[in-house]
Amino acid sequence: MTTTYTEHVTIRTERRYEIRDITELVEKARAAADLWDGVVLVSTMHITSSIFVNDHESGLWQDIMTWLEGLAPSGLDYKHHLTGEDNADAHLKRMVLGHQVLVPVTEGRLDLGPWERVHYGEFDGMRPKRILLKAFGLKKNG
Amino acid sequence: MTTTYTEHVTIRTERRYEIRDITELVEKARAAADLWDGVVLVSTMHITSSIFVNDHESGLWQDIMTWLEGLAPSGLDYKHHLTGEDNADAHLKRMVLGHQVLVPVTEGRLDLGPWERVHYGEFDGMRPKRILLKAFGLKKNG
Amino acid sequence: MTTTYTEHVTIRTERRYEIRDITELVEKARAAADLWDGVVLVSTMHITSSIFVNDHESGLWQDIMTWLEGLAPSGLDYKHHLTGEDNADAHLKRMVLGHQVLVPVTEGRLDLGPWERVHYGEFDGMRPKRILLKAFGLKKNG
Repeated sequence: MTTTYTEHVTIRTERRYEIRDITELVEKARAAADLWDGVVLVSTMHITSSIFVNDHESGLWQDIMTWLEGLAPSGLDYKHHLTGEDNADAHLKRMVLGHQVLVPVTEGRLDLGPWERVHYGEFDGMRPKRILLKAFGLKKNG
Repeated sequence: MTTTYTEHVTIRTERRYEIRDITELVEKARAAADLWDGVVLVSTMHITSSIFVNDHESGLWQDIMTWLEGLAPSGLDYKHHLTGEDNADAHLKRMVLGHQVLVPVTEGRLDLGPWERVHYGEFDGMRPKRILLKAFGLKKNG
Repeated sequence: MTTTYTEHVTIRTERRYEIRDITELVEKARAAADLWDGVVLVSTMHITSSIFVNDHESGLWQDIMTWLEGLAPSGLDYKHHLTGEDNADAHLKRMVLGHQVLVPVTEGRLDLGPWERVHYGEFDGMRPKRILLKAFGLKKNG
């Protein structure tokens, strides 16, 4: 049986720049969908944050933030700031990491490699942001 | 009822480097598919352009182009140019932004955040390029 | 008829940094799934490699590697290396290119543009790595 399941989860980071492991949210959506084979789309609904897959390792998380600050520094005279905003760097950083991933589901489990974890990357935080999770595919007795 | 719908749209920018909001194309494909719940895959069929989600704001669009030119400058002595091409920078720029997105559809609407808009990024334009739109999922009385 | 098909393919590059065209693996999975309309998800299961779509051109492949080394150099004092690892650059490089793509399938064929080829990008190779291929959609007499 073909099934779909959608959830919108609100997240609020404590810092402006923050990385958080959200793999458990993905598994929770998979379980709520009772999905046996398919995918879970995980997509941030905001244009200053990212969804990406990488290692759950706090040193690497720091490396990622330092690296992104080098590639797309905050505080420059961006054209976008003429609108009154000050977060152009966040719009750019989020594109390096991407804004969505598909997590495959096989035989009722997230079909991830041993070190793959799904992360939320925030570059303009300390306010509510939403993540969309949409599971679709087949249930067990499909 | 499981449904799929595919469209190939041709686009021709007036400038070599250009960003264009194509969200209406996505909604048009969703409506043609009569999709109630699922996703629309939006994917450029060319390797010198991008599909990405970000803000519809012309200042930011300029920032993106300036930023990409810094990360992957045009006019360098790329190996790719030994083939007679002069667009290696376009091949690189397009990878920073990505070449496809999935737009979620929930209850018959594009399930986008308030500022999310789907964009086409062109880095070697002034000639016809194709974008693939494939909507799949469930119709209302699925 | 809605169908899904999943394959895990092991790849082992000869060099630490290597790009390989894997489009044939994708077509093989499509054929095994007997997929008429849908998508094939191609996703690396490792966090130091990429899946991306670009030109099959060895000069460009060299340009990509040189470019990525400039954006995310190896051999720096990354925090991640305090864990004993030496591959932080691979974790960063893989994010620029991305770790998965969806290959659309229309009328029983990979619906790719004339120059689009699916590639595996390895940044910490010479050991077995797995790629997940999941085809889903409709069979011909769906």
